Amino acid sequence: MSSHRIEIRVKPRPGLLNPEGKAIHHALVSLGWTGVEDVRVGKVMYLDLDAPSPEAAVEAVEAMCRKLLANPVTEDYEVSVVGEAEVVG
Amino acid sequence: MSSHRIEIRVKPRPGLLNPEGKAIHHALVSLGWTGVEDVRVGKVMYLDLDAPSPEAAVEAVEAMCRKLLANPVTEDYEVSVVGEAEVVG
Repeated sequence: MSSHRIEIRVKPRPGLLNPEGKAIHHALVSLGWTGVEDVRVGKVMYLDLDAPSPEAAVEAVEAMCRKLLANPVTEDYEVSVVGEAEVVG
Repeated sequence: MSSHRIEIRVKPRPGLLNPEGKAIHHALVSLGWTGVEDVRVGKVMYLDLDAPSPEAAVEAVEAMCRKLLANPVTEDYEVSVVGEAEVVG
């Protein structure tokens, strides 16, 4: 067993309203960035997980996404391995 | 000029408290995922931007991060091009 760092990107489904993204879009245009066409905001999570292999870690994290981390009606998720977890003192 | 889709990951700096990550960690352990060692939560943003090149788009988005999208004291950010923006009808 070793520790794997997994990145999870949870994002709003296309077509759903994203008020936080809309507010950021408006602020960027007000600051002069008029080339911005759309902003959508989701969550990124970094999870350190003890697992026998990176594949097993990803499989466990996908189960976590289905059960807790993402809303299956409104959000999509993507899971990727970003490396071994750093040892924190 | 064409439209580029940029992904921005804004994450809490190492060493800073991340209460949302801690709450998720606790929930995962309660659900039986005892191999989870740490969870940290940040934001992911998808920005569609009109720019002459992907490099120019990234440069503009890094300026947006410094000025608005990330808190320079508490957060780090990473910017990457994820492709041409989809044309939404």
